[in-house]
Amino acid sequence: MALETVTPIRVRYAETDAMGIVHHAVYPVWMELGRSDWLRELGQSYSEWEAQGVMLTVAEIKVKFRAPARYDELVEVHTRMREGGRRKVVFEYEILRDGVRLVEGETVHLVAGPDGRSRTMPEHLIEFVKRGIGEA
Amino acid sequence: MALETVTPIRVRYAETDAMGIVHHAVYPVWMELGRSDWLRELGQSYSEWEAQGVMLTVAEIKVKFRAPARYDELVEVHTRMREGGRRKVVFEYEILRDGVRLVEGETVHLVAGPDGRSRTMPEHLIEFVKRGIGEA
Amino acid sequence: MALETVTPIRVRYAETDAMGIVHHAVYPVWMELGRSDWLRELGQSYSEWEAQGVMLTVAEIKVKFRAPARYDELVEVHTRMREGGRRKVVFEYEILRDGVRLVEGETVHLVAGPDGRSRTMPEHLIEFVKRGIGEA
Amino acid sequence: MALETVTPIRVRYAETDAMGIVHHAVYPVWMELGRSDWLRELGQSYSEWEAQGVMLTVAEIKVKFRAPARYDELVEVHTRMREGGRRKVVFEYEILRDGVRLVEGETVHLVAGPDGRSRTMPEHLIEFVKRGIGEA
Repeated sequence: MALETVTPIRVRYAETDAMGIVHHAVYPVWMELGRSDWLRELGQSYSEWEAQGVMLTVAEIKVKFRAPARYDELVEVHTRMREGGRRKVVFEYEILRDGVRLVEGETVHLVAGPDGRSRTMPEHLIEFVKRGIGEA
Repeated sequence: MALETVTPIRVRYAETDAMGIVHHAVYPVWMELGRSDWLRELGQSYSEWEAQGVMLTVAEIKVKFRAPARYDELVEVHTRMREGGRRKVVFEYEILRDGVRLVEGETVHLVAGPDGRSRTMPEHLIEFVKRGIGEA
Repeated sequence: MALETVTPIRVRYAETDAMGIVHHAVYPVWMELGRSDWLRELGQSYSEWEAQGVMLTVAEIKVKFRAPARYDELVEVHTRMREGGRRKVVFEYEILRDGVRLVEGETVHLVAGPDGRSRTMPEHLIEFVKRGIGEA
Repeated sequence: MALETVTPIRVRYAETDAMGIVHHAVYPVWMELGRSDWLRELGQSYSEWEAQGVMLTVAEIKVKFRAPARYDELVEVHTRMREGGRRKVVFEYEILRDGVRLVEGETVHLVAGPDGRSRTMPEHLIEFVKRGIGEA
């Protein structure tokens, strides 16, 4: 079965803007927190990936905003990996507050080495990722 | 003719991350700077829109990353409005360094009042926007 | 006895910079999280203060950096209020990782109304603050 | 004579918070922009320092807030180096809007190598810095 993780986040004052709501550029940061937790919960944190010379660069990001979040609210980032290949992975996210969906997002990542160049994932990480998307 | 503005940005150290490149969540902030300049150059800055009770909330954002930017580099945000309606506007962006395209982006905005509720643009702003997209 | 709270924070990738460490401008944000938790734990969150028309504007900030934090590390913000008057309060902070002190900080706040103008704290908040600093 | 540089900054929407003003953690970022411009104007940008293996780590930061800045305003960071040694330098800053002083700040930096360890400045950078503080 595919892994879905839930990352609770308390909204920071610094994350709000003059409209009194969370600034839209904050959501990609929260999605990154969701991604970190997903990898950690599956068993290899992203810092362990980096230590093995495997980076996930961000190639694409999409976010749809349904409703705003505000200071001090408690939101949840729900994270799944939708596609896991040896050169590319796709994550998807929902951000909720009290069960209400505020935001949906998607990020596309390319596998790269520490120099930023494209590479393929080592075999054990491919297995790892397959487990995360419920294919192994 | 449609207005295209060019916003020069010097990359800040605080905008980089541990990969040594600009963090991906910074690009929506730069796109917002491009949008601000586009409105200012057309003749009504976004703070003047706000003063008239007309907000452009962010409903959707898409960014494609081609190549990274680094500390102290000088990049340019090229901004156009692609669609300008009375309830919705769409901006598109290209971010370049020395003529090389680093990033392409798009943002969809809904027209709202100070309370965040949907409203239609007043007539003079509709004319204004039409001028910006080259339809008036 | 004076209240001291401990706020755990997992370092975000977006908080690092090209030196591979947490950017120094992030620490005031973490100190603000510590402050929020201190008020919440004492019994009135800062959003409740705001709802009563009482703001704590930041008048001064000092931070000393001993050692850096890095991506994915778990740090702790220890927060105390050192001085609690009806017009001014002072918080102090220590940020630790595994018992090692990374950063010390201090913030001075002035009491203000929603318009940003100086005011005095209402009586029940003065009592509240006195309890927090161990004087009531 | 000591060098003083002036860095103009247009306030970004993302830099504001729910109080409608610039969040206090933004000012250290602006001070860093001032520092970058001071070094560039003196003749060696900070990225050139880095390329020579000389970093200026931030050891201490102090900021006093007199008055707030708001979205779209044009502020100026005035930067001077107050003390320039072979192991430590001190910068001071004033941030103004239309001649009104909003913020005063100070940062203390230690000279370090790419590994983050303390080192002394090479001779030509010591001369460079002396010129900047008006001692050569």
